[in-house]
Amino acid sequence: MRVGVLGAKGKVGATIVDAVKAAEDLTFTAGVDAGDPLTLFTDSQTQVVVDFTHPDVVMGNLEFLIDAGIDAVVGTTGFTDERIEQVRSWLAAKPGVAVLIAPNFAIGAVLSMEFARQAARFFESVEVVELHHPFKADAPSGTAARTARLIAEARRGLPPSPDATSTGLPGARGADVDGIPVHSIRLAGLVAHQEILFGTQGETLTIRHDSIDRTSFVPGVLLGVRHVADHPGLTIGIEPLMGL
Amino acid sequence: MRVGVLGAKGKVGATIVDAVKAAEDLTFTAGVDAGDPLTLFTDSQTQVVVDFTHPDVVMGNLEFLIDAGIDAVVGTTGFTDERIEQVRSWLAAKPGVAVLIAPNFAIGAVLSMEFARQAARFFESVEVVELHHPFKADAPSGTAARTARLIAEARRGLPPSPDATSTGLPGARGADVDGIPVHSIRLAGLVAHQEILFGTQGETLTIRHDSIDRTSFVPGVLLGVRHVADHPGLTIGIEPLMGL
Amino acid sequence: MRVGVLGAKGKVGATIVDAVKAAEDLTFTAGVDAGDPLTLFTDSQTQVVVDFTHPDVVMGNLEFLIDAGIDAVVGTTGFTDERIEQVRSWLAAKPGVAVLIAPNFAIGAVLSMEFARQAARFFESVEVVELHHPFKADAPSGTAARTARLIAEARRGLPPSPDATSTGLPGARGADVDGIPVHSIRLAGLVAHQEILFGTQGETLTIRHDSIDRTSFVPGVLLGVRHVADHPGLTIGIEPLMGL
Amino acid sequence: MRVGVLGAKGKVGATIVDAVKAAEDLTFTAGVDAGDPLTLFTDSQTQVVVDFTHPDVVMGNLEFLIDAGIDAVVGTTGFTDERIEQVRSWLAAKPGVAVLIAPNFAIGAVLSMEFARQAARFFESVEVVELHHPFKADAPSGTAARTARLIAEARRGLPPSPDATSTGLPGARGADVDGIPVHSIRLAGLVAHQEILFGTQGETLTIRHDSIDRTSFVPGVLLGVRHVADHPGLTIGIEPLMGL
Repeated sequence: MRVGVLGAKGKVGATIVDAVKAAEDLTFTAGVDAGDPLTLFTDSQTQVVVDFTHPDVVMGNLEFLIDAGIDAVVGTTGFTDERIEQVRSWLAAKPGVAVLIAPNFAIGAVLSMEFARQAARFFESVEVVELHHPFKADAPSGTAARTARLIAEARRGLPPSPDATSTGLPGARGADVDGIPVHSIRLAGLVAHQEILFGTQGETLTIRHDSIDRTSFVPGVLLGVRHVADHPGLTIGIEPLMGL
Repeated sequence: MRVGVLGAKGKVGATIVDAVKAAEDLTFTAGVDAGDPLTLFTDSQTQVVVDFTHPDVVMGNLEFLIDAGIDAVVGTTGFTDERIEQVRSWLAAKPGVAVLIAPNFAIGAVLSMEFARQAARFFESVEVVELHHPFKADAPSGTAARTARLIAEARRGLPPSPDATSTGLPGARGADVDGIPVHSIRLAGLVAHQEILFGTQGETLTIRHDSIDRTSFVPGVLLGVRHVADHPGLTIGIEPLMGL
Repeated sequence: MRVGVLGAKGKVGATIVDAVKAAEDLTFTAGVDAGDPLTLFTDSQTQVVVDFTHPDVVMGNLEFLIDAGIDAVVGTTGFTDERIEQVRSWLAAKPGVAVLIAPNFAIGAVLSMEFARQAARFFESVEVVELHHPFKADAPSGTAARTARLIAEARRGLPPSPDATSTGLPGARGADVDGIPVHSIRLAGLVAHQEILFGTQGETLTIRHDSIDRTSFVPGVLLGVRHVADHPGLTIGIEPLMGL
Repeated sequence: MRVGVLGAKGKVGATIVDAVKAAEDLTFTAGVDAGDPLTLFTDSQTQVVVDFTHPDVVMGNLEFLIDAGIDAVVGTTGFTDERIEQVRSWLAAKPGVAVLIAPNFAIGAVLSMEFARQAARFFESVEVVELHHPFKADAPSGTAARTARLIAEARRGLPPSPDATSTGLPGARGADVDGIPVHSIRLAGLVAHQEILFGTQGETLTIRHDSIDRTSFVPGVLLGVRHVADHPGLTIGIEPLMGL
């Protein structure tokens, strides 16, 4: 499989170039960055392009790639409903071309949320704890808030988790995200970690995701590269490629 | 829903009687133990019977219940292929009657294995750690061995997990169950716990199940009672009732 | 060693009676409860008495025991400064008699707080997470609040832990106990658990205590029984008997 | 305090140079590497030198520094009993000069072993689990083996941990290091982690150390730099400087 990279000189892009070169079943064709012509991909018979660029340029990139019949795996952010619709209409004109746009390529994070969704309605109690380095500006993290909302959605119709707390200190029971308590820990020596705790009579189930390295998106991107062609049209999130 | 219990004076049975009585949506009809007539169930218009009895009597119980059109939720052990076939043939004669036979009603344990199966093929590395009280005779535990075999099955065709160990002490890398390392910890103060660790570039995913109480089967049994009727015929394991 | 128990018919007392009987190096002499004469201890040549009774009666018990030259291990609560002074003055009159009064006999909890105190000044960051069953009325738990205050005391003079949080939801960063964030989780299936997380550049240290059984005070009480005589006079807390 | 670095162009040395420059209470004076004269330290009125060089040159470095009255913090390996004696004799001739030689500067690892030693004799059961990246050659790790031996030493005279294992698979119960079970996990996505589990009736205590970054030695080295002068003569290990 012949693979190119857009944003190839960026930190993320360069890591992906290295990973493609290291994979025995993939051939690296071309790296394109600001100023380089996109025709490097067509000239090199590239089959899939990975795009980690910028919201300002990603739509132009996708228009070119779809028109050229090249599949795309996109980690660039900023996809509004309007942009999604635009991509769909370009794809409608080129049946067989496949585009994957994913907000999160970390396989462990994606599975962790999916398992939380599946487990949510079988337990009386659930709480989310996220742990990050102390330079993070938001608490709770976006991922933790999203996880809590997913769980709340899956628990719709169930009674709230039991909680007899009647005295105490403000904040002890965490932030409330759609009825799910979320606790944020900030600690030197950590990177990005999340724990989802479920409990019922006599037993608990804990799903923990630890990301200790900025390269944890690599296996998910390679999974996208290898399987995007099996999903013609637009796919949002890597879950469908994982059979979830 | 009108619910009876077979083996009502046993430790497990008595716990289930209490749980049925405590559940607002369930009505306890009759408890039957050695010497009591099974007609107590028909006399009391029982709709579902929970059977935690003994391999010696469970087949007679099931023949009576199926014939009487009463659904059954069975935790009794000893179901050979022959017995399963016999139950199926009784059920064939009474369409609409539902029987659930499950080896494990602990929801956390069931989900934990199911998640391990789903995650298995997305990670380079996987190991299982089980932790129990020190009075346990077998190591690894049956659940850990079963979990490892499920994971090995799901990983079929993938390369083995990387492991550069070249020197060391015997046993350090655990027991080998179909290529999956399994580690058994025995510690005073523990009950029954299991951790499945998955790892790939820059991230790990851990699924942990803690069972600290002999009543952790209760929520799974009640789930069986409430949903068995939606699955006419024979169902093995509570997974299908959980939509897994 | 000849050991008696005061409050022998209470839940805790009865557990201690059983533990004394089971210990090969201890001989159970007498159990005393409301209405029984304290002379049962002197008549039986008791050397140490364990008192888990009630604030209303514990002072009378201690006066008798000290006067009779019997050592005491006390788990009863309600010791004000005045009461402590009174016990000291009784002991001053009977040199050689030993009394141990401890608010917490769980060895793991005591060690956990001691280690937190020792580690506190070597890490930039520290947070406390306590996890309990959902029937608990206070959040944070008394133990967590006490742990946080101990840590804050040990960190006196050090800069506050780094925390760049600038946006988020109220409560996400936990309760503030003397500057230490404390998070309270309430989950069905839990009993009493506490985690103290320390972090500095590139590494974290976690001290976790899990108490899953109401009998976790037993080893600490037996430790008190065996070593109280080595500490004549009044001892507060089991730490000195543990060499901490 | 005026601080120099020996081995300043090595990976470790360069990290220490950066850390010294970043510390408000320290002044970086000179970095010396192969070929540079050691007089750079005397010329710059250096008070403490950190040495992360090579066994081949460290003795010459120490002879010069001690003679010049400069304190040293040494992370270089290869100190045999003979070398230690030699350093002691140089120091005897220069009272007031202080040298710290430490095999491990990771504060969390040092505390973790110290706490294990303190806790060891109060629990019936203890096991060690170490978790590392899959490129590690030895299992168990040197740190885990050392931790187990320390624990075994502290438990001398106590009965062995209870273990009713009678059937199972070889390796399930881990490696035996002086009677302490040690389990080694090798997982992609991990760096270096260790968990020491203690258990007794109804409770467990877990001490976990996570090192996720090759710079975790920095806080320990700075601690050495700041406090070595308070310990004239030779000090082995950072424990005495931590008041342990």
